[in-house]
Amino acid sequence: MYGFQYYTPTKVLFGKQTELRTAEMIREFGGTKVLIHYGGGSVVRSGLLARVTKVLEDAGIAYITLGGAVPNPHLKLVYEGIELCKKEGVDFLLAVGGGSAIDSAKAIGYGVTNEGDVWDFYDYKRKAKACLPLGVILTIAATGSEMSDSSVITKEEGLVKRGYSSDYCRPKFAIMNPELTMTLPNYQTACGCTDIMMHTMERYFTNGGNMEITDSLAEGLLRTVKANALILAKDPKNYDARAEVMWAGSLAHNGLTGCGNDGGDWMTHKLEHELGGLYDVAHGAGLAAIWGSWARYVMKDCLPRFKRFALNVMDVKNEGTDEEIALAGIEAVEDFYRQIGMPTNLRELGVSATDAELAEMAYKCAVGVKGGMGSAKFLREEDMLAIYRAAR
Amino acid sequence: MYGFQYYTPTKVLFGKQTELRTAEMIREFGGTKVLIHYGGGSVVRSGLLARVTKVLEDAGIAYITLGGAVPNPHLKLVYEGIELCKKEGVDFLLAVGGGSAIDSAKAIGYGVTNEGDVWDFYDYKRKAKACLPLGVILTIAATGSEMSDSSVITKEEGLVKRGYSSDYCRPKFAIMNPELTMTLPNYQTACGCTDIMMHTMERYFTNGGNMEITDSLAEGLLRTVKANALILAKDPKNYDARAEVMWAGSLAHNGLTGCGNDGGDWMTHKLEHELGGLYDVAHGAGLAAIWGSWARYVMKDCLPRFKRFALNVMDVKNEGTDEEIALAGIEAVEDFYRQIGMPTNLRELGVSATDAELAEMAYKCAVGVKGGMGSAKFLREEDMLAIYRAAR
Repeated sequence: MYGFQYYTPTKVLFGKQTELRTAEMIREFGGTKVLIHYGGGSVVRSGLLARVTKVLEDAGIAYITLGGAVPNPHLKLVYEGIELCKKEGVDFLLAVGGGSAIDSAKAIGYGVTNEGDVWDFYDYKRKAKACLPLGVILTIAATGSEMSDSSVITKEEGLVKRGYSSDYCRPKFAIMNPELTMTLPNYQTACGCTDIMMHTMERYFTNGGNMEITDSLAEGLLRTVKANALILAKDPKNYDARAEVMWAGSLAHNGLTGCGNDGGDWMTHKLEHELGGLYDVAHGAGLAAIWGSWARYVMKDCLPRFKRFALNVMDVKNEGTDEEIALAGIEAVEDFYRQIGMPTNLRELGVSATDAELAEMAYKCAVGVKGGMGSAKFLREEDMLAIYRAAR
Repeated sequence: MYGFQYYTPTKVLFGKQTELRTAEMIREFGGTKVLIHYGGGSVVRSGLLARVTKVLEDAGIAYITLGGAVPNPHLKLVYEGIELCKKEGVDFLLAVGGGSAIDSAKAIGYGVTNEGDVWDFYDYKRKAKACLPLGVILTIAATGSEMSDSSVITKEEGLVKRGYSSDYCRPKFAIMNPELTMTLPNYQTACGCTDIMMHTMERYFTNGGNMEITDSLAEGLLRTVKANALILAKDPKNYDARAEVMWAGSLAHNGLTGCGNDGGDWMTHKLEHELGGLYDVAHGAGLAAIWGSWARYVMKDCLPRFKRFALNVMDVKNEGTDEEIALAGIEAVEDFYRQIGMPTNLRELGVSATDAELAEMAYKCAVGVKGGMGSAKFLREEDMLAIYRAAR
């Protein structure tokens, strides 16, 4: 067991109509001039943006808007947002959407409050010293960015996708109304559930410092998301299932399910980031397409954890050798992915990568992790290439 | 499922030697003149106080000290602390100890920053508008006050024990080094484990709005504390078991295990508060002495929850009627209490109450909850008296 720091200052308002309390929250955290940052048109079409701007107008809070955040949010829009905030004297960011809008807003927040090029933080060159205060109205349960310290941005030049983490960007508040997620297409819901589970699975499959309470919380969370993802695949308007998944999404990535261990493995995420950078696939689907190949590649080096996972999360029977049980757990995850419409390899993901492209991704991934990374098993460039090949 | 607010801003530093980072934390949260508030002599005898004051001196942070916080902390010392803080210009409180020192410090913090008598808040007369910023070095895993919004104070006159909750008093930071809890007597450790489990059980046994993820986290936490309390009963120096219990103590009472439900039942706590006010018994032992009688009295009105608890937490076999399973779960809790040296009734607690005393407690308890309370079963004065009698 390792020592740890746990810091989740985000005030969560969870439930129906909580978006009507947006102005109250912005005031509580000192905002007077707000940039509302959102993604595509769904926030506009659904009427959510109009509802939120009305609440701000009624409260006399000044705001401007910036739409256009895309999945794997782009650096260009971040630069645009930074300029806009500086020009307009914005002192509070309100992200309305999912991980794309939130991560993009976090990067804007860094850019406004720190000197120099904001990409430096994502390029491991410098550390941020501040971030604009940020609030969130969540419309997609997936990335957990609404309570997390991390954000992921893609630089268009060379399609480099990188993450940066610091406590400065943890949102001041997160408004979570499960009803706002009900109109999501099934594919996107399933991508979200996959991402949520993966955030906790990345923390779970480690060889260092595991803690029983953390494991038991993680397993409870994973069982809950699995069960409710299956419900939502058939009944997407189920409020309770939406709520279970939405709250799980925050807890899966706010640090709770990693307390006491060595920080997690995170190689599935790193491998997917290169996929996402090169092919612009949905993050959750990319994770699903990679995970099985990663798991089979590392399983023997982290066998007790894979066995425990199979028994406690995937309901595998405690029969056979440890390896057989662990492998049955991996297969059960892939079965689950198929049931919710997720891919289990690159072909099913719609990516037909050449040998050269796989090699390029493995090279960039290895550079991105400074040569090698992983706690379930430490992976170098050749390991990454082998996993990409197995996933083809 | 109900909507909820979740707010746990406390920055947790968990692990060995984390107390050496006290000055860094006080600076981060703006403290310049500190009142160190602690309880009995153990904090002095163990050398912890000297270690902490040296860290502050090395960092050039001014401080004064006030010892003497007792279990069921008294209002008189709170008044004394308020005067001291005002006189000395204290702008930050550092509680070193367990729930007694922390709760007492919270009350001091309310008193310094609000006009009028601080007891008004505990007497339901007014609401606080602020609290001095507060940090904690935890030495006892029990009350969860290090992350919670609540504090409990006893007014000497009439021995009235009351709790008051507001987000203002949530500690800015909590330093948790499991080694600091290793020298606790077994009885006090067991009291702590009982209190920790009860904080989550109070939230678990409800008839309103239960959420699957909350239940699965609660059950994981309860199983973990149960297992590690049994380890500590035989091996009190076991670091890992101390750590499991210590972290569980915070999570059991920071709101996590009640998200989505109606707020919990809390009648066992209310019934114990009267015991604690009148007889000055250890809080955890008082809870253990009451719980079985409460559970049998309310079981039929909350049967599905008692059954689920028996199966998922107490490892009762799924055989027999729902009532038989639920009752076996209650008996398993009492067996567990006996194994860790906790009482299961007032006699074992060392309290021989007269009929008049039981009636007085039931009356005061009913007044304290404005006539009646409870979610597993709504209890009025006559129900409270029946439970006290059954617990005798």
